[in-house]
Order: sequence, then C-alpha cells, then structure tokens
Amino acid sequence: MNAYVTEFSVPESFSPVHRAEQYIRNTRFDRPTLVVDLEQVAAQYDALKAGLGRAAMHYAVKANPAPEIIAKLAEMGSNFDAASRAEIELCLSQGAPAERISFGNTIKRVSDIAFAYQVGVRLFAVDAEEEMHKIAENAPGADVFVRVIVENCDADWPLTRKFGCARDKVLHLLELAGSLGLNAKGLSFHVGSQTRQAAMWENTLDQVAAIWQDAKEAGFDLSLLNIGGGFPAFYGDEIQGPTDYARAVMAQVQARFGDVPELIAEPGRGLVAEAGMIAAEVVLVSRKSENDLSRWVYLDIGKFSGLAETMDECIRYQFLTDRDYEDTGPCILAGPSCDSADVLYEKRPVHLPLGLKSGDRIIIPSCGAYTSTYASVGFNGFPPLDVVVLP
Amino acid sequence: MNAYVTEFSVPESFSPVHRAEQYIRNTRFDRPTLVVDLEQVAAQYDALKAGLGRAAMHYAVKANPAPEIIAKLAEMGSNFDAASRAEIELCLSQGAPAERISFGNTIKRVSDIAFAYQVGVRLFAVDAEEEMHKIAENAPGADVFVRVIVENCDADWPLTRKFGCARDKVLHLLELAGSLGLNAKGLSFHVGSQTRQAAMWENTLDQVAAIWQDAKEAGFDLSLLNIGGGFPAFYGDEIQGPTDYARAVMAQVQARFGDVPELIAEPGRGLVAEAGMIAAEVVLVSRKSENDLSRWVYLDIGKFSGLAETMDECIRYQFLTDRDYEDTGPCILAGPSCDSADVLYEKRPVHLPLGLKSGDRIIIPSCGAYTSTYASVGFNGFPPLDVVVLP
Repeated sequence: MNAYVTEFSVPESFSPVHRAEQYIRNTRFDRPTLVVDLEQVAAQYDALKAGLGRAAMHYAVKANPAPEIIAKLAEMGSNFDAASRAEIELCLSQGAPAERISFGNTIKRVSDIAFAYQVGVRLFAVDAEEEMHKIAENAPGADVFVRVIVENCDADWPLTRKFGCARDKVLHLLELAGSLGLNAKGLSFHVGSQTRQAAMWENTLDQVAAIWQDAKEAGFDLSLLNIGGGFPAFYGDEIQGPTDYARAVMAQVQARFGDVPELIAEPGRGLVAEAGMIAAEVVLVSRKSENDLSRWVYLDIGKFSGLAETMDECIRYQFLTDRDYEDTGPCILAGPSCDSADVLYEKRPVHLPLGLKSGDRIIIPSCGAYTSTYASVGFNGFPPLDVVVLP
Repeated sequence: MNAYVTEFSVPESFSPVHRAEQYIRNTRFDRPTLVVDLEQVAAQYDALKAGLGRAAMHYAVKANPAPEIIAKLAEMGSNFDAASRAEIELCLSQGAPAERISFGNTIKRVSDIAFAYQVGVRLFAVDAEEEMHKIAENAPGADVFVRVIVENCDADWPLTRKFGCARDKVLHLLELAGSLGLNAKGLSFHVGSQTRQAAMWENTLDQVAAIWQDAKEAGFDLSLLNIGGGFPAFYGDEIQGPTDYARAVMAQVQARFGDVPELIAEPGRGLVAEAGMIAAEVVLVSRKSENDLSRWVYLDIGKFSGLAETMDECIRYQFLTDRDYEDTGPCILAGPSCDSADVLYEKRPVHLPLGLKSGDRIIIPSCGAYTSTYASVGFNGFPPLDVVVLP
C-alpha cells in the first residue's frame, strides 16, 4: 500500500506506478540517489508544449543539468535557458544548437558573455546599466530582453528583488540598449517559483502588461515576451495539470498582450521535478527526552546533500516508506551532518510510521528539480547526491 | 590602505600582513578561491594548545578537510574529530593513527561504525538508544561518551536541539552502554558555534556539571569530559585571543569538574577560520530603481558556492577591496546564481566603496572554516570553491 498514491489526488502526468519508484524498490543503494525517469520528462515536455502553443520552451537547465535530460530535450526540439558558461557548454555538448540557447542569468561574468557570443548565443537577459554595457562590449549587436521586477504574492516560494529592475528603469534600459547598438527585443519577468494555479498569474501579468504598455507608448517596438518559469510540481497540494495550466496562462497572456510575435516560457521545476525520486535511508530515530512528543528522524540526506529547498521549510516533500500501513506520529526530520542548521522540517513536523528505524528505506517523490546540483562537494565527508537516469 | 587592519582591533594571532592576503593580491584567479596559510594554522594550534593545557585537541575535520591541514596537524600531534567514514579515511591517509581519531557524529551509518571499528577507532559519540545498540553491535566494547543538550544563549550561532539528549535520558544511556558491553567514559556537549568570550561558557558549564554530578551520585565512574567546539574566529566583533580564551575556559572547567582524568576539546572554526581568505570578484553593481538608497552588489561567490554560513545572516564576513580609500555606501550583497535565495546580506546591508564595479577584486578574510566543503558540486554551472594551501 502506498500512502502517496492513495491519499492525494494524482496529477495527470503521474502514472500509477512511477518507473523511478519501481527502480528504487528493486535496487540497493549505498548512498542517497536521485532516480530520474526520462520517459516522464519527455511526456511532461509534450504536455506542457500542448498547452504553451506557439510559445517556445526554454528549459531552465539549472533545475537539473543531467546530460541525459539535456540530450533528450534537445532531440525533442526544446530550447534552453542557461545560467553560466558551463551550462552553455553542456547544452552544446548534448546537441543543442547555439541559436536555441538563451543566457538568462542577469548576473554574468564578462568572460562568460564573451564566450557565449563567440559560440553563437545571441539572446541575453539584462536588468541593469552595467550589465548592458558588458553585453554591448562583449556581444555586440546581440538581442536583449529586460527583466522587470513584479510583486509576487501567490507563489509558494515568492522571489526576492534580486532579479529585475523597477518600472522606472525599464524605458531607460531599453533606450540604453538601442544607443549601445543592441537589439532591445522585449521584456521578461518571473511569477515566482511553484505558482500552483494558472489563475495566480493574473496580478503579475497585469503589472507586466502595464510596463509593456509604457514601452509601446514610448515608441519601443517590442517583439518578445519571456514569461519565465513558475510552473509547478506536485508536492502534495493540488496543482493544475501541465497542459491545462500552460493553456490557461497563455490565454491570460493573449488577453493582455495580444499577438506578440515571439513568446518564451522557461519551465524548470514544472518540467523535471515529478520525473525524479530520491532513494534515501533512515540513519537514526530518537527522542531527546522521555517527555518529548515528537521523535527526531535522521536521514542519510539533508540540506547540504540535496534537499536544500527545505530551507525555511519552503518546499515540503512527501515521504514513502515500507511501513506505510503502520500508524504514524509527528517527527522532526533532519540530515546526517554535524551541522545544527541541517534540520529539514521542525516548525511543521512530518508524520511518519511509528515503527520507523535505522536502516529503513525512504523514497522522496518529486525530487527531479533543484536537488542534485545543490548538493555540496562533500560536507562532513558525505558524497554528493548520486544520479541515475532511466532511459 | 587596508580598512580591515586599520578599523578593528586585531586579534593576537593576526600578523600585520596576512600571507593569504599577500598571495591573493599578487595572483589572478579565474574563479573564487580560498587561500589558506598553513603557517597560521600551526601558530593557532600552538596558541590554543598553550591555553588548553592537558586537554587533548581533536580538530573538527568538517571545518576544513584540506589534506594539507590534516597532515600538518597530524604531524604536530593533534587528534581528530571525524563526522563520517570519508573523514576517518582522510585522517588515516594523512598520517593520523586511528587511536587519535574520535567518531563525533551522533548520527552514524551502521556501515561507517563498522568501518571505523575495523580500522581501529575506539571512541564514539552517542545521544540515543538506537545509536547505542548500533555501536554495541558494530564496535563491541568501544568507548562512548554521551552528548547532552544544553541551552545556548551566548553564542553568535546557537545550536538547535538536533544533537544531544536531555538530562532525564543521560543516566539511562550510561546504564544502557554498560549493559551492552560498552565503556561509558563520560559526557560531551557543545556551547554553541562562535562563542566569542570564555565568560560566555559559564551557564553551559553549570548545566553540564549538574548532569555530571547526577551521574556520579548514581554511581557512574566518569573519566572523560569532552567540551566540544565553540572556539571563535575574528569576524569584526572583538574576541578573546586563543590562548587566553582556552585558558579561561579550562579554569572554569577545573572549578566545576575538578581533576577529570581525560579532557577533550574540538576546535574547528577557532583553529582554521582566520588562516583562510577568499579571493572573489564583483560581477555586477546596480540599483533596482532610481529611488533606491542601497545598491545591489553581486559577487562571483554566493550561498551555494562557499558562503553558506551567511544563512540567516549569521556569520557576517568583512570585505576588502582595492578601493578602501573611497567613501562607502550601503549595499545588498548577493551571489551569482539564478536563485532568489542566494542573497548574502539584505536585512543588515554591508558598506562598500561607492566606486565599486564589475571586475573589482574582493577579499574576504576569516574564511578558512565552513566554506570549501559547503560549496555545491555545480549549482547553476558554477564550479565549487577552489582551494590553495600555502605551505
């Protein structure tokens, strides 16, 4: 019996028995391992594409740079959103042509810009004057889009002001681009990570549409709208299925922006998270005091070896065990390192089987995004998360 | 002119010109690099040893596992506190004999316990019944010490309840150890990371002494007290020099515990942090809006590439630039990744030169501990922190 499958409504992209889960249940691992089902990545790509229509998908490589994923998506015709030189090199090495790669990080090393331009990348994100000058000098004549700040209220993980510029800067940057010989193509934004329902985009799209209108009135002929990421994965709370979700977002875009010549979407989590599951193990179960109501459960994976998104308990993973037929009780969940910050869930404890003990297997679904690359090189001597991709 | 040296009182272990700083100023780096001065590690070891007296030093390997540091300390006669099998293997490979290695992680894989025992490690930390059984089965007859929880109030970075057990469990665990054929040698605790003054240990030592007394009254013949870490490094706020600090802590221990046969201290940060400096670079300086008072300064190093201890702005690093003669203004400091959580200091902005711009060198002192191993394997395609050790 599987608590995960029976207790929650299963999103359309979930097959009844997940191939990754099946593989994990039939395999012994000597360290925490992420297992990714490439068939499910492909199915999710198709499902999102069906909803996105004529918008080009640029996979956010940072979500999971496993070469097999990049190669598969390249073969299927996907574009790629890269954050650094190494990610561009990865995409090229896996068969993605340079013209299908955009350099979406607004914070780029000068040498990375020069490299990107030299290999043929022509589309760059920018949100500041200094960055515009860096691009003009090292990627002359390139296409740029200006990232704008929006106020996020509805995402599970709202973004900070780290990326983008405020409305009062946008026209200035578009003008600067032109004066430096760059092609100011349009705008980009980010609705916030893990925005669970398409309806939650409304407020953000209104904000961006107002800026778009500003630019049109100021005479800028914008031809590109990059709607960024924010596409959700299933962590237990209901989400809209990928095709419905994408279609509903695009309908809202059409209503506000009309027939924009070029549309880009950058799913990362929404494309690969559900395709991956982590195989982990319980290392210790204890109570700190005879009177404690909660047990402490320590896993062989923690904040510094793959589960960084538990930071501030933002992403709440689910956990499958081989004891899901037992009664459960509240647990504080922690990682294996000698670091007091390596606690996964404490403010809101998780409920796990009462018989759980050292050596028990734990399966963590929806781990295909933002796990393997966050892992430290070897904090406390623990190796990074291993990755297995099922072809 | 060097703001770092002139504006703050310099602790005794700082030479007027730091060798790591000199090296960084004379070198070009193509990625963020930690430079560690091995001579300073050795000097700090001697300074702490002078104050610790007959207490054995067990270097907390997790603070910085650079092989050169381990080899140097092994040669100088240091003992080692290991957190995992890999750390034990590292110590052995660098010349530390097994009898000078303790396995201090309270959360140990069964296979790691068996490995440790097999290579000759005989001293283990424990804070729970299940862990005691794991040790009894896989390291029969070993020495154990029970880690107790203390309430931390005075550390810069108080620890959670993740490690240790409450007072009501201690006697039970000591008894369990005996009944399982283990040698229950004593107690350990941790005063909290970065406890800046020896006087701040008072309250913690009182708590542990009360538990120690409980155990003696219950007939346990304890012979080992492990006072853990907490030894501070200089980040700008005044700290006591290493010898004075260690001597004052040991005097407080003597006053409360008398002539304990065996004493252990586990400095990590306090031994290696000041010996290392990071060479980094400014990637972008911007304002989000014309009206913003603070600039955003983006470095080529961030939370996921070495500066993880900026989490919740706990450890506040200082920053040296080549413009320290210029007037300064407030900055929000962030890393280079496409991750909105990769912001180093925002609640309390840092003050940096007004002329700071892309390409400028940044030197970050006191980075010898808890930086290199926290670095991710390649988040966003950025390589892990490079490490150079000056012999």
